[in-house]
Amino acid sequence: MADYIEGKRPLVEALRTHVPFKVILMADNVKHDSLINDIERKAKRLNVPVKLVPRKKLDELSERGSHQGVMGQTVPFTYHSGGDIIKLANAYADEHDGRALIVMLDHITDAGNLGAVIRSADAVGASGVIVPSKRSAGVTAATYKSSAGAVVHMPVAQVPNLVQIMERAKKEGFWVAGASEQKDGTIWDTNLKGKILLVMGNEGEGLSRLTQENCDFFVALPMEGKVGSLNVAQASTACMYEWLRQNQAPKA
Amino acid sequence: MADYIEGKRPLVEALRTHVPFKVILMADNVKHDSLINDIERKAKRLNVPVKLVPRKKLDELSERGSHQGVMGQTVPFTYHSGGDIIKLANAYADEHDGRALIVMLDHITDAGNLGAVIRSADAVGASGVIVPSKRSAGVTAATYKSSAGAVVHMPVAQVPNLVQIMERAKKEGFWVAGASEQKDGTIWDTNLKGKILLVMGNEGEGLSRLTQENCDFFVALPMEGKVGSLNVAQASTACMYEWLRQNQAPKA
Repeated sequence: MADYIEGKRPLVEALRTHVPFKVILMADNVKHDSLINDIERKAKRLNVPVKLVPRKKLDELSERGSHQGVMGQTVPFTYHSGGDIIKLANAYADEHDGRALIVMLDHITDAGNLGAVIRSADAVGASGVIVPSKRSAGVTAATYKSSAGAVVHMPVAQVPNLVQIMERAKKEGFWVAGASEQKDGTIWDTNLKGKILLVMGNEGEGLSRLTQENCDFFVALPMEGKVGSLNVAQASTACMYEWLRQNQAPKA
Repeated sequence: MADYIEGKRPLVEALRTHVPFKVILMADNVKHDSLINDIERKAKRLNVPVKLVPRKKLDELSERGSHQGVMGQTVPFTYHSGGDIIKLANAYADEHDGRALIVMLDHITDAGNLGAVIRSADAVGASGVIVPSKRSAGVTAATYKSSAGAVVHMPVAQVPNLVQIMERAKKEGFWVAGASEQKDGTIWDTNLKGKILLVMGNEGEGLSRLTQENCDFFVALPMEGKVGSLNVAQASTACMYEWLRQNQAPKA
């Protein structure tokens, strides 16, 4: 996540969506308009200190030159390890009739989509979300916003090697299901009972070859329309609810 | 939809996502940078005329003063009537073993969410999307973008009175299903076979009282997490795929 968020509206929005801040730096000559008052009020409620500094200091720190007299220094997001998430999922399975879900995102590029996936993952009771540490969206202020706060509760891991985690999950009793529209059969015909590692491809290219080779099977959402694709957040929501349905519904 | 889209980047984005334009107005003294070249190239491919005008003309037309020497006049979006969509859905049902889906959005406020719902509606083969004409998001350039082009194919109706359309749909053999997290039972226990009018509430307040009173039954997605809500696009995607599953899956 960016070290600093600058400007009045971006800060109001970040505070509203629970981006954690170390400190908010305010120019000592800032004009107190309604946005500045709102920032002070929100910071107080969240126990974030507001420090008055010379405007020159903000000019030095600012990357984009759009600080408008106020900048917030964020607390870096704490990522879990892939192993942590497998452990959490195993503990969840023990308490939920053997079901657990981990969502892996194969190099998605949009931090907002990441947040939307995290929100759905929270809704179905998934144990965590795993992203690669390179060439992938990580957690940013946009993630906080689109997750509607779920990122505060949902463990997210950045891992150097997706395949390694897939292999480890298999050893721990997970089935690795890759979402792919190119495959035969539908998700409804696929057994998603128990512990599942669901792998979603990126927005443009789907699953990478190496990731595909390490899936146990594939799940596909039927596409009945003229456009023929969903974004990764929508597709993963439908897949995650199908996992929950198969594991929870008393009748079908 | 706004009559004019102004500025270089907004125009490139709008052309890329198939917002239809009548004409693009360009200042006769505009500097030909890569964005202007891109606009000209895209306009040519889409057969949109580019007209050179005095910069003064753009200054007069501009609402936001940010035209940067280029503005596009959009073709107003053509809404269908609610009756049209019911007719289309009946025709679809005749060809698809009696199944049809119409999605109604009860006063959602975000034009981007509208586009995301339209994209999912297209993916499952829904016949149309209905929104109220007042206090609701309509189709804007943001809708084109988030629908990934699906808004070009998907009939959208703006209607003065949602309840009237709900009643009419019932007379034509539709079941009216309201999505509500406050209700007992889950969507999986609810019969969604056949012709369904799915009503989704808005982002903040859910279904309005009057809309609720006119639903035949309710569908609820289980919420297993700590945040306990989905955005309207994610929730409707999960509901729509459950409709498709119940109507299509050979086994369950």
